[in-house]
Amino acid sequence: MSIVLGSNRYGKAENRIVRIYRDTPRHEIHDISVSTALRGDFAAAHLAGDQSQVLPTDTQKQTAYSFAKEKGLLSIESYALNLATHFVDHIAPVHNARIEVEEFAWERVVLDGTEHDHTWVRRGQETRTASVTVDGTGDAQRTWVIGGLKDLVILKSTGSEFAGFMQDQYTLLQPTNDRVMATSLTAEWRFSSTDVEWEDAYAQIRQLLIKQFAMVHSLALQQTLYEMGKAILEACPFITEVRLSAPNKHHFLYDLSPFGVENTNEVFYASDRPYGLIQTTVLHDDAPDAGPAWDSYTGLV
Amino acid sequence: MSIVLGSNRYGKAENRIVRIYRDTPRHEIHDISVSTALRGDFAAAHLAGDQSQVLPTDTQKQTAYSFAKEKGLLSIESYALNLATHFVDHIAPVHNARIEVEEFAWERVVLDGTEHDHTWVRRGQETRTASVTVDGTGDAQRTWVIGGLKDLVILKSTGSEFAGFMQDQYTLLQPTNDRVMATSLTAEWRFSSTDVEWEDAYAQIRQLLIKQFAMVHSLALQQTLYEMGKAILEACPFITEVRLSAPNKHHFLYDLSPFGVENTNEVFYASDRPYGLIQTTVLHDDAPDAGPAWDSYTGLV
Amino acid sequence: MSIVLGSNRYGKAENRIVRIYRDTPRHEIHDISVSTALRGDFAAAHLAGDQSQVLPTDTQKQTAYSFAKEKGLLSIESYALNLATHFVDHIAPVHNARIEVEEFAWERVVLDGTEHDHTWVRRGQETRTASVTVDGTGDAQRTWVIGGLKDLVILKSTGSEFAGFMQDQYTLLQPTNDRVMATSLTAEWRFSSTDVEWEDAYAQIRQLLIKQFAMVHSLALQQTLYEMGKAILEACPFITEVRLSAPNKHHFLYDLSPFGVENTNEVFYASDRPYGLIQTTVLHDDAPDAGPAWDSYTGLV
Amino acid sequence: MSIVLGSNRYGKAENRIVRIYRDTPRHEIHDISVSTALRGDFAAAHLAGDQSQVLPTDTQKQTAYSFAKEKGLLSIESYALNLATHFVDHIAPVHNARIEVEEFAWERVVLDGTEHDHTWVRRGQETRTASVTVDGTGDAQRTWVIGGLKDLVILKSTGSEFAGFMQDQYTLLQPTNDRVMATSLTAEWRFSSTDVEWEDAYAQIRQLLIKQFAMVHSLALQQTLYEMGKAILEACPFITEVRLSAPNKHHFLYDLSPFGVENTNEVFYASDRPYGLIQTTVLHDDAPDAGPAWDSYTGLV
Repeated sequence: MSIVLGSNRYGKAENRIVRIYRDTPRHEIHDISVSTALRGDFAAAHLAGDQSQVLPTDTQKQTAYSFAKEKGLLSIESYALNLATHFVDHIAPVHNARIEVEEFAWERVVLDGTEHDHTWVRRGQETRTASVTVDGTGDAQRTWVIGGLKDLVILKSTGSEFAGFMQDQYTLLQPTNDRVMATSLTAEWRFSSTDVEWEDAYAQIRQLLIKQFAMVHSLALQQTLYEMGKAILEACPFITEVRLSAPNKHHFLYDLSPFGVENTNEVFYASDRPYGLIQTTVLHDDAPDAGPAWDSYTGLV
Repeated sequence: MSIVLGSNRYGKAENRIVRIYRDTPRHEIHDISVSTALRGDFAAAHLAGDQSQVLPTDTQKQTAYSFAKEKGLLSIESYALNLATHFVDHIAPVHNARIEVEEFAWERVVLDGTEHDHTWVRRGQETRTASVTVDGTGDAQRTWVIGGLKDLVILKSTGSEFAGFMQDQYTLLQPTNDRVMATSLTAEWRFSSTDVEWEDAYAQIRQLLIKQFAMVHSLALQQTLYEMGKAILEACPFITEVRLSAPNKHHFLYDLSPFGVENTNEVFYASDRPYGLIQTTVLHDDAPDAGPAWDSYTGLV
Repeated sequence: MSIVLGSNRYGKAENRIVRIYRDTPRHEIHDISVSTALRGDFAAAHLAGDQSQVLPTDTQKQTAYSFAKEKGLLSIESYALNLATHFVDHIAPVHNARIEVEEFAWERVVLDGTEHDHTWVRRGQETRTASVTVDGTGDAQRTWVIGGLKDLVILKSTGSEFAGFMQDQYTLLQPTNDRVMATSLTAEWRFSSTDVEWEDAYAQIRQLLIKQFAMVHSLALQQTLYEMGKAILEACPFITEVRLSAPNKHHFLYDLSPFGVENTNEVFYASDRPYGLIQTTVLHDDAPDAGPAWDSYTGLV
Repeated sequence: MSIVLGSNRYGKAENRIVRIYRDTPRHEIHDISVSTALRGDFAAAHLAGDQSQVLPTDTQKQTAYSFAKEKGLLSIESYALNLATHFVDHIAPVHNARIEVEEFAWERVVLDGTEHDHTWVRRGQETRTASVTVDGTGDAQRTWVIGGLKDLVILKSTGSEFAGFMQDQYTLLQPTNDRVMATSLTAEWRFSSTDVEWEDAYAQIRQLLIKQFAMVHSLALQQTLYEMGKAILEACPFITEVRLSAPNKHHFLYDLSPFGVENTNEVFYASDRPYGLIQTTVLHDDAPDAGPAWDSYTGLV
């Protein structure tokens, strides 16, 4: 038995780039954090400190900024595709590139009923995400694109139950037929193609997630998540797999009876920790190989 | 010279309360973090560990939850007024109560053009705040109410300059006549009355802040802040003082010239630290005494 | 009644400076975040956007970095004194400067019993702080120095009670004669002089805080805080006032009785929110005027 | 093609448990955050909202607290093993359990040279971690144990270079033969056995990480990480794989030349973002199958 170098990668994480389009008086803004990770022939750097095959992380940063102008920054999926392909195609030692993007949404200020040309407030509802992996060159090149969102905090004040569950000697929980259900949703969806209207796809999928949360009478968070994934796959032929991770942000009914005050699902304590955490995958039974598509680099996306 | 007990207070911080109004199928939600602080005859607790005059912080928490039902939780200013007055009027050793509230906004989900009855997503733009201080009892009782917001992240991509500034031997900065200006605004406004339509006041002031940021051609962040305060005082006779604190969230133009790429205010690096920090007060010259109104307890409000 | 500009200041916040002393093979490290705030004749900047009296925040940053070499960065109190005095003495429109510093501690790595010359791990226990305010010039110049620490997380597993407290109709808490007491202490102390051995003073005061927490049989957190302040004032003639802020980090005994498991103060739930929050001042009855000494700029110190 | 339920799990995340051993006057403290995740026959919960095979996350929490007393909480690896095995062996629908633990270190207060019996301050250097996965029952049961640490912030002020790197048209970085190297290290190591002295192993591995960081003259962070992994595998026969993730916390030399001030590696700007991020695996060439060992549940461990 001997000691060997295993899987490795390196890159520049969390490059904060703001791109303004100002070709007309009505500007547009795109605000992202992008991370780049390269795999390839880097054994000499590890074993001997030889950097001759190592493109500096600073160079990766410069490229990411320059591409925001050279290639444009409209849809994060296409921006990431450009960046990943560049590294694999043009930097010889690189076999595989992964680009992870978070996009922070801004909404245009409205004054006296009119949208302002160049002022925005940050929208806080959720962060849009994308992860692109490009592997290999030429005919052997393969590409995986994942879109997603995180931190979509959503709550319903009725239409949710949790009852009929398994019990053992540690079970104290009482069943409930009407509770607050809330989560901070992370959802990611794998595209089966790169020929997609990225902006339309995002808007459609986001709305489906919200609609299923609102409309499904929930017997469990698991059920709601499954219905979310199913709805996306049914509506979007260009999606082949959906992964959902949902903390159950507990809202505990506060006991006001010692004070002679009735509390019929009106006053709740919103707890921080611990929280339930449900993770579910819904996919096509013939979904193509995911390869390295889900292998997160920064943990942010 | 001898050692003495000075200013002191105690309370329960960051009680997370969610209040659902469900009298009709169309529910309403109010989501707050409330902190309570009491001043009074607490020397014995400090000097001898005698708790007989100390109302437990747990009791303050119970009261805050119960009042969300007993007194209601519609406007945070009136909720805080009820709570502060209760402690001063009904707990003998308490001379002074301060209540600090953060309110987290939710927006109703819209499905197929219709607002949903009981599902919301968290709005992220800003947190609304209120601080109420009640001091003394009976005819000597005085009350101060401060409303506010924090974390209103706002950006304009043109209409901002910084030039003509003072220079010394450490000055390297170049003047600019067109820059991105962005901040995460904290604003607080002191009411001259408690007879206010709190919801209308908040909406009006928030809109004035945004409007001034957008419309003032800014020669400095100081100027923008002053114009914000002035506009509020001019439009709102029930406001007597405005305090503004604004980090200058620097967006540095990224130098793409080494790559032969032109960058005319299109690609920026959004920096985290350090940041400029501008703090300004605008008030009526005959504003009544602020007393302890600005003496923050938690630092959150 | 007219609208006027009130209190205002501006500066550069959170400059992250690391200073290495490398005059011998055994290096020394000082790692700080420093914020600068200036008050003075800045009305024209607010009212007319005229920057001619405004020293840019970027210049303040350059000065802070340069002074780390020019003046040195050994004790944060003396570094801040140098910086504050510079702005007041050399920048004409500036009447008052406040410098706030956080210092992050590192401890030298020990290998085979020997301290390493140039490698450290970050100590996480607490952050040391200092706030210096210099006001006026020449003979009228006044100076205030505050030292401190924050985030000193400390816990005792016995030797703490809470009983005999006041009760009202909202009181449910049960008294206890043996509990876990824990806090994340913030302490600040005001010096009566600038002729102090800053490093010795810090070490002595920090140790007194810990000792009092450990040794005082606590009948309330208020009592422990008062004893801390008193001990510092008794031991340190150069300190005139101590301010303490202590969240009561609740450790709730976990009820294992439903499972037939005895829990005699052995298993606790460490709660995040809400928390008690106790704030206490202990001072000399003839302490000199604090002036603007406690008027925090960033809220970090 | 049809839509199917894929990989799924659920549990209770971030249970904060503090365990005091108080059998003698000299108490001991163990402070953890533990998360539990179960896999098994949960299709009915997803497809039909049927909870009959679902052990509530609340029950998992109760079990985690009770086991801190019933089984004890000394080494987090053995605590996690007990918990994982319990769920797989005693809850019929569960096929696989994963337990993730973070442990927060405390150090005993020393007063006048003597360790105090029951008072500690929180050590901040790093968080110890463990992940245990148990899969299957009876003879088919397999177990994976991973130990680790995160947030070990470590810096060397010399003995690090970065030169001779690859260049392309986006390369601006200048080589350096003497720089500050700093990281916030995450390391995880996979055990080849469960018959390990967990506390000794942790102390030994932590010290090896620090020693390699200090002693290796670093030509690249990749090289340092490889030497860390190699040293652990050479010294610890019970470890079969080491994974390292290291942000390159850039310390940029600050240019003081405009002020006529020399800066020979003395004054640095500690940057927040972006940062290099290096991830490396070192393992035995005959390491057994890792199975689900590295499939993080919470992202915290």
